[in-house]
Amino acid sequence: MIPKGFRAAAVEAQMRYKNRLDLGLIVADEFQASAGVFTQNVSQAAPVVWSKNRIATGRAILVNAGQANAQTGRGAGDRCLQSAKAVAELLLLSSDEILLASTGVIGQPLNIEALISAVPNLVKNLSVDGFDDFAKAILTTDTKPKTAETTIPFDSGPPASIWGVAKGSGMIAPNMATMLGFVLTDAAVEPKLLRSLLAQTAELTFNRATVDGDTSTNDSLFIIASGASRKTPIAEGRDAEIFKKSLKEVLDSLARQIIRDGEGATKLVEIRVQGARTREEALLAARAVAQSPLVKTAFFGEDANWGRILAALGRSGADFEPYRVDIDIDDLAWIRHGLVFGREADATLAMKKREYCLTINLNNGPGQDRVLTCDFSYDYIKINGSYRS
Amino acid sequence: MIPKGFRAAAVEAQMRYKNRLDLGLIVADEFQASAGVFTQNVSQAAPVVWSKNRIATGRAILVNAGQANAQTGRGAGDRCLQSAKAVAELLLLSSDEILLASTGVIGQPLNIEALISAVPNLVKNLSVDGFDDFAKAILTTDTKPKTAETTIPFDSGPPASIWGVAKGSGMIAPNMATMLGFVLTDAAVEPKLLRSLLAQTAELTFNRATVDGDTSTNDSLFIIASGASRKTPIAEGRDAEIFKKSLKEVLDSLARQIIRDGEGATKLVEIRVQGARTREEALLAARAVAQSPLVKTAFFGEDANWGRILAALGRSGADFEPYRVDIDIDDLAWIRHGLVFGREADATLAMKKREYCLTINLNNGPGQDRVLTCDFSYDYIKINGSYRS
Repeated sequence: MIPKGFRAAAVEAQMRYKNRLDLGLIVADEFQASAGVFTQNVSQAAPVVWSKNRIATGRAILVNAGQANAQTGRGAGDRCLQSAKAVAELLLLSSDEILLASTGVIGQPLNIEALISAVPNLVKNLSVDGFDDFAKAILTTDTKPKTAETTIPFDSGPPASIWGVAKGSGMIAPNMATMLGFVLTDAAVEPKLLRSLLAQTAELTFNRATVDGDTSTNDSLFIIASGASRKTPIAEGRDAEIFKKSLKEVLDSLARQIIRDGEGATKLVEIRVQGARTREEALLAARAVAQSPLVKTAFFGEDANWGRILAALGRSGADFEPYRVDIDIDDLAWIRHGLVFGREADATLAMKKREYCLTINLNNGPGQDRVLTCDFSYDYIKINGSYRS
Repeated sequence: MIPKGFRAAAVEAQMRYKNRLDLGLIVADEFQASAGVFTQNVSQAAPVVWSKNRIATGRAILVNAGQANAQTGRGAGDRCLQSAKAVAELLLLSSDEILLASTGVIGQPLNIEALISAVPNLVKNLSVDGFDDFAKAILTTDTKPKTAETTIPFDSGPPASIWGVAKGSGMIAPNMATMLGFVLTDAAVEPKLLRSLLAQTAELTFNRATVDGDTSTNDSLFIIASGASRKTPIAEGRDAEIFKKSLKEVLDSLARQIIRDGEGATKLVEIRVQGARTREEALLAARAVAQSPLVKTAFFGEDANWGRILAALGRSGADFEPYRVDIDIDDLAWIRHGLVFGREADATLAMKKREYCLTINLNNGPGQDRVLTCDFSYDYIKINGSYRS
């Protein structure tokens, strides 16, 4: 269920892609608060810079796919302003109320003429039924739209919901938002709390997901609360906890969809590390395994090649004793004390599943963390060896 | 020319591979000094632990391919001792004079029976003509043997030479020796100086080369000086500088051969970073570019997709201003001030070469460094999706 207070639309602007939806718009007709998290890449796209400066006032989101508007030089900021103005005028808003996001090829100037020409139709199409089109318009090499929703189980008061949409695919790494994600709620949340909850839940979901370790110049995650379901904003306390849990559920679902649809991916693997000295070391270890090309090709080959996992752990920077490591695949006890315990045939069978969980216990302390990853397949090479052509 | 004072041999021990040379031996009949550098992986193979403890006395090198003897549990050290003893007895040496190295699958117990059975023939075959066979015996997924040699241009005194052999292919990352390499010289070098020169030159060559960012459990680089060409060891001074230059030349050639023959590689690309704040940041930047799957697939696709390079630099941890970055491909001025300067057609043409150099100037300081890398191709996935089968 789409939260109350929002409309969306998408059109074929023909900015770079032909004959597909490539420009989307979401508007909060009622507006209570908004927040965002952004790429940590030193090279930040012009729309990232634009939206960072306006995140607290943003009640509309304009997104184009195909051109990232990153590293496009002096004109890039101007093109952001022109885009925002074109939308703002027709919505009777200020341009500071328009958030921008772009995804696509870096270094190509934004086709601003095509964008501006498309805006009137885009605004005209806005409707409470426009969200499916919006979800399609923001994709690049994704093979399917990604949305998630949940009803927030508040103990009392009017019902409210959270809906989210994302695009992922390549240049996905566990460092910041690492993709485009847009989340809407008709709850009302005190703005500072909203910022904090978004940062916390993004850290536990999107920032724990990796396709290829490459962090994009454009990663942005926005949340807008319309407040259409209740007037009094949630503050710290039980309602904040309930809201946070629902938000995390939506983000987690989107992160999983992104990794499941990673470029060329045939597997979704959750790498859980336990027993590290600290949570930081658990994350180092999980990321080293999740990003190792040799581990990822073994996932693709359905090869129970545990030596590659041990080798990745060993260069991760986490402190442990290799002969104390235990590894399970789902509920199969695979490795015990650094050596094969389960039958290889069982491990191979477990790795034939489309989705599974590797639980790695370093038996060296209380630290734990996890990272979602996918495999490296022929199609990753195919897609990225010819992405622009 | 093989330095004086050494013999080598190889046999088909049938330890795991069938009908190919898989066990090699080098012996220094005259011995003056030896040194080594080893993997920094927390998980270190049994032969690494063995050889580390005996590196100063090692005058023979026994190497098997196919089984890494890493993560093989309690029996692993025993198998090292048995291997070394078998060779030492026939050579009339102590087992502490035998260095060991293994490469292959992690977690498979070493086939010690096959090894021991093969040792008598191996020792019998030792000859000054055995080095080509040795170079073949240490390979795994390498497609060709890798050797390099040079005559040391000392100003005076008897001539001396350096010869080296290496195996690489997968699990190659810029962190320690990152493969197996064995270097022989008939010069005599003061032992402490030999250690220092090996460490310095390995850091500038092998530790600046990456195939996939994965650091093996078995990486080892040994040098043995026979002293057969001169009795007085080189100490600090001009001769040490000349020796170091020759040693670096041999290691650099081997490192290039390793990357050129990286698993599935079709390109050899040198990433030179200049103008970083410090050398450390230059290295961070060069490694981020050299290890980025998106950059490496663009190399494979001969796609002048410079945005991926900017994005990798941006997440590297190096400090710079994206709009001050210049990039050349060989002598083509490609990117100036963070934007395309050369014609894309020229950049594409330059990337069609089998080997080229990317020179990245961050224009932010005096730091420079470089990393050798290769592309990511379908064959990397093919080889590693089915390595053990």
